[in-house]
Amino acid sequence: MSNAAPNMRLRLPLLCISLQLLLVILFALFVRYDQHTDAKKWFELKSRNHTPNSENEFYFRYPSFQDVHVMIFVGFGFLMTFLRKYGYSSVGFNFLLAAFSLQWATLMQGWLHGLGEDGKIHIGIESMINADFCTGSVLISFGALLGKCSPGQLLVMTVFEAAFFPINEYILLSLLQIKDAGGSMTIHTFGAYFGLTITRVLYRPQLEKSRHRENPVYHSNLFAMIGAIYLWMFWPSFNSAVTSLGSAQHRTALNTYYSLAACTLSTFAISSVVNGEGKLDMVHIQNAALAGGVAVGTAGEMMLSPYGAMIVGFLSGVISTLGFHYLTPILDSKLKIQDTCGVHNLHGMPGILGGTVGAIASSLASKEIYGDGLQDVFPLLVNERSASQQGLFQALGLLVTLVFALIGGVIVGFVMKLPVWGAPPDTQCFTDQPYWELPEDQGSQSEMVAVKQEEAEKIV
Amino acid sequence: MSNAAPNMRLRLPLLCISLQLLLVILFALFVRYDQHTDAKKWFELKSRNHTPNSENEFYFRYPSFQDVHVMIFVGFGFLMTFLRKYGYSSVGFNFLLAAFSLQWATLMQGWLHGLGEDGKIHIGIESMINADFCTGSVLISFGALLGKCSPGQLLVMTVFEAAFFPINEYILLSLLQIKDAGGSMTIHTFGAYFGLTITRVLYRPQLEKSRHRENPVYHSNLFAMIGAIYLWMFWPSFNSAVTSLGSAQHRTALNTYYSLAACTLSTFAISSVVNGEGKLDMVHIQNAALAGGVAVGTAGEMMLSPYGAMIVGFLSGVISTLGFHYLTPILDSKLKIQDTCGVHNLHGMPGILGGTVGAIASSLASKEIYGDGLQDVFPLLVNERSASQQGLFQALGLLVTLVFALIGGVIVGFVMKLPVWGAPPDTQCFTDQPYWELPEDQGSQSEMVAVKQEEAEKIV
Amino acid sequence: MSNAAPNMRLRLPLLCISLQLLLVILFALFVRYDQHTDAKKWFELKSRNHTPNSENEFYFRYPSFQDVHVMIFVGFGFLMTFLRKYGYSSVGFNFLLAAFSLQWATLMQGWLHGLGEDGKIHIGIESMINADFCTGSVLISFGALLGKCSPGQLLVMTVFEAAFFPINEYILLSLLQIKDAGGSMTIHTFGAYFGLTITRVLYRPQLEKSRHRENPVYHSNLFAMIGAIYLWMFWPSFNSAVTSLGSAQHRTALNTYYSLAACTLSTFAISSVVNGEGKLDMVHIQNAALAGGVAVGTAGEMMLSPYGAMIVGFLSGVISTLGFHYLTPILDSKLKIQDTCGVHNLHGMPGILGGTVGAIASSLASKEIYGDGLQDVFPLLVNERSASQQGLFQALGLLVTLVFALIGGVIVGFVMKLPVWGAPPDTQCFTDQPYWELPEDQGSQSEMVAVKQEEAEKIV
Repeated sequence: MSNAAPNMRLRLPLLCISLQLLLVILFALFVRYDQHTDAKKWFELKSRNHTPNSENEFYFRYPSFQDVHVMIFVGFGFLMTFLRKYGYSSVGFNFLLAAFSLQWATLMQGWLHGLGEDGKIHIGIESMINADFCTGSVLISFGALLGKCSPGQLLVMTVFEAAFFPINEYILLSLLQIKDAGGSMTIHTFGAYFGLTITRVLYRPQLEKSRHRENPVYHSNLFAMIGAIYLWMFWPSFNSAVTSLGSAQHRTALNTYYSLAACTLSTFAISSVVNGEGKLDMVHIQNAALAGGVAVGTAGEMMLSPYGAMIVGFLSGVISTLGFHYLTPILDSKLKIQDTCGVHNLHGMPGILGGTVGAIASSLASKEIYGDGLQDVFPLLVNERSASQQGLFQALGLLVTLVFALIGGVIVGFVMKLPVWGAPPDTQCFTDQPYWELPEDQGSQSEMVAVKQEEAEKIV
Repeated sequence: MSNAAPNMRLRLPLLCISLQLLLVILFALFVRYDQHTDAKKWFELKSRNHTPNSENEFYFRYPSFQDVHVMIFVGFGFLMTFLRKYGYSSVGFNFLLAAFSLQWATLMQGWLHGLGEDGKIHIGIESMINADFCTGSVLISFGALLGKCSPGQLLVMTVFEAAFFPINEYILLSLLQIKDAGGSMTIHTFGAYFGLTITRVLYRPQLEKSRHRENPVYHSNLFAMIGAIYLWMFWPSFNSAVTSLGSAQHRTALNTYYSLAACTLSTFAISSVVNGEGKLDMVHIQNAALAGGVAVGTAGEMMLSPYGAMIVGFLSGVISTLGFHYLTPILDSKLKIQDTCGVHNLHGMPGILGGTVGAIASSLASKEIYGDGLQDVFPLLVNERSASQQGLFQALGLLVTLVFALIGGVIVGFVMKLPVWGAPPDTQCFTDQPYWELPEDQGSQSEMVAVKQEEAEKIV
Repeated sequence: MSNAAPNMRLRLPLLCISLQLLLVILFALFVRYDQHTDAKKWFELKSRNHTPNSENEFYFRYPSFQDVHVMIFVGFGFLMTFLRKYGYSSVGFNFLLAAFSLQWATLMQGWLHGLGEDGKIHIGIESMINADFCTGSVLISFGALLGKCSPGQLLVMTVFEAAFFPINEYILLSLLQIKDAGGSMTIHTFGAYFGLTITRVLYRPQLEKSRHRENPVYHSNLFAMIGAIYLWMFWPSFNSAVTSLGSAQHRTALNTYYSLAACTLSTFAISSVVNGEGKLDMVHIQNAALAGGVAVGTAGEMMLSPYGAMIVGFLSGVISTLGFHYLTPILDSKLKIQDTCGVHNLHGMPGILGGTVGAIASSLASKEIYGDGLQDVFPLLVNERSASQQGLFQALGLLVTLVFALIGGVIVGFVMKLPVWGAPPDTQCFTDQPYWELPEDQGSQSEMVAVKQEEAEKIV
């Protein structure tokens, strides 16, 4: 890898160090502890009229935060280890991008979502969760690009995406005042179409030269299953992490649990149906079975009812599996969209489904159904908006997200195309070789062959 | 696999889709949010005389719920990946069965454990945990059958087991009013003997044809160790997930922690002793070291005292390891019980031990020891029953469980024997081949040989 | 392994069983439930003047406890599976040592940290966390010795280390009254230098005979990455697990989160810089990226400010990665310290950095910065000590820890050298062979070669 290596040696360290030093300076200038994490403010808060539950908010959110954290680092990281020769990069670059993104997102989200009276960003448990959410979106985009970009390119993408994401989020949540607690729109739809647009801009007509590496070995699929199952299990925590405390949060967790369960059955069914011999495909099980979590990301906190959540989950599993089988090859051959992980099927279409379900569920909300809980879920519906208006705003939010993702993706795609970031050649995709010191069993052609030759020669 | 594949293509999808649609209909008819998850009822509840801790119950139980969830999906799923060529099926079918079971169990347990005034099942965090518990029992039975049944057969088993389990549970907890918070009897003893009976009914005299696949490779044992360690770590949460809030829950977690620690040391000791060269056996470490969690499943919430919990754990490790070494081969050769995962050693015998310890600990309970905590652990002992009566009822519960598991297992075994579910032939046990699209490195004879031949030919 | 096996058969079981029986007896004599876990005392506590949060302390600490537990068993256990032929021993001995250590530490810490009025040790959630902390220190020492000691030797080390650790902890926390919530000094510095001293005493001049096994294969590094990422994710829980409830705990989690994020970027940068081709080294990513957690172990609860935490994390990543690249080979060749896992780089130097940062941050503490929170973090600073005095005491604590670790390590190293514990010969290091029944694919020379020969012969 004589051409890639020197690039790495200069570019990656320079990027990492300069970005990290910039972060330190910006944090020093702008970031302070919030009321729950500052020693002094906390006691001032407690001495004022204060309910135990506002005092305990950190404790009620912290377990969900850790679950989300596991999804970001283990879930996304290991889900992407399915490629036979790209495991180190999958889990390693996931780690690097996430560690950078959550610092950068803290700043971007802080600036947009309101500074304190002192002009500073005040951080605590909610900003930690929100930074993880933005990071989730970045990692979805990474999934579309998996195996085809250098870590430098990916860091550049993250710099932009973790800035665009909060702007879109701000438009939806603060300007349009729509609901999207689990991020069907802000996280999944945005991340997917942002990444898909980039991979379209970075289209590699000669990718065939690396296609023989674009599939798993037996054990790499088991590593990927670790990621998939952690995502599946903790999605109730993901969708409910930032909802109102109390029944809104409990309901979100419950709706997500049943949506995912139903999604799993429809995924197994369709995976078997579309296969010529009725066999199951690990790609579907690892990915489509998670679509139920994406698809209730907006409506999870609403009064979907358990069977409603199950219908949504069921449909998302069907759509997602069909997408993997029929649509991904078409996107690749006709639209020149090389979507390595199939994020269009797991995050794109289920995200749009989720946004749509959220719009419908919003337009059916009423004081009769929600009682005093209306305030928690739809504060504007108490006085300011009708349910159908809210539904329209929700639909508008989905549209805005799509437009934003497409425009943002085009811009960032062209930035990533600049040769300075050192993209791997077409023959060096889907391999750890250019980026990692590899153990002997993964030498240039694979040491196995060498060993075997050696032995065969001895024998002969 | 020309004979198995067409079966899969028709049977598995039809089963999955019809079961899931049935679930949606039944949920629509019968299932509603409970007071903690319904927007309206929650605020009505809060406006009434309400203590902070009843309001926060969801938060206090949710982390334990997620721990149990990890045990079900990662714990059981990966523990069973030890087989060299059955990893996809182990973790994949575990996933499918669990996703179905937790919906089905929600209904069955809801019908039995009391409908609301509106004739509906009201669900929330406790029903989610209880559905996971029932699923645990199903997965224990799956362990006995591992590698020898088609997914269709396993789904049919789950339909029945997740109906029988709540009935047995109802008899024990509601009719006999006995204590079994961690399910030594209801979950472990029931699941183990139910599965063992089925595997007896499905006895395969020609299983030798697949025995060469019934063992691990180096890395499959490390995947299995992931499952084992997650089960071990989170067992304190499992046993305490549905006990009374407060000291009963804290004590259960603590007793389980020390029981497991002691069990681990006795397992290492006996594993080394029974081996001709003093070497340790991964099967023992992965399984017998967990028996300490099973064995304090009934008595964990009682005033066992820490050293009492350690004695129980120590004994269960000894019994379980000896069972793996001496008893499993006998069950196989003499009693025609082919117990793939050795669930008799991990769940069967330690479950009986746990039920017995629970009966003894109950018969020793007194107001002197428990103080006002007696109400939490043994409400009937305040006025209605003597301690020795409670002990007898506990023993009776163990007996009922065994009878129920044996009868249920026989019925379900014969149902599973019907040819319509498509059992794999004796030559196709312990292999993913009939059910999964496999990567090249796991072709029909194993692509490795092919590759090697190819190379050797080139060299020659 | 004719020479090692008989040793195992006698020594390991005898050690495990006698230690476990001793533990049962000592627990029976000395250990009782505390106010939160005893049925009677709990209700007595509640009936007295009692705030909800003291009642709920168990719930607030339990999720952190489970996170720490995951770090101990999965984090340390899998981090050490990077060696190609020592995976069973890494995760298995980690499991054994931890299960023993947490019982033994309960006793030792209980005796030192104050018995109840009844002369008994009262245990609950805090003692469970503290026992896990002591176990963490033992496992750090194990990391230095990895692959070079028998399980008997390691158990003997644990007996001593889990006794020395609480003494050092007692001197620091109770006598010197210094702060070290996340254990930069008590856990990391102590465990690292204790283990390094032992490995120096046990120096093997002929270790070259096993060096060919002292490196990973492709998949063993992915297993190790599971461990590394769990350690990284849950470090905020580790550092905050025993701090005061409220803002001190929240701030510790937040500081650790940002320190680790910054550390990850500097680790990637330096790893690429020091490599001749700019390639990344998995050893650095798995280890040095965690140094940010170690380095804020003392100061995490202090008012470091987020950017302060990031600077500490950044530096620790630089120091740790440079240590792996430049220092470890020198320690090995010049100082005869064979540090298998490089604990000097992950725990030693970052621990000293952490202790130093803690001393500086303490000396800058004031009522102005901490407000009424000063009582939580530095109770002595309210009336009894000046900030600079506290800083000096902190520095003294670091010194005491180093002296204690060195003296303890020398004593224990010579005890471990006694032939009775059965050390493996130089040719049998870094291999599971002497201790575990291995699957066919890991035969004495490796069955792969045999299989290939067989096939090649057929072909020829």
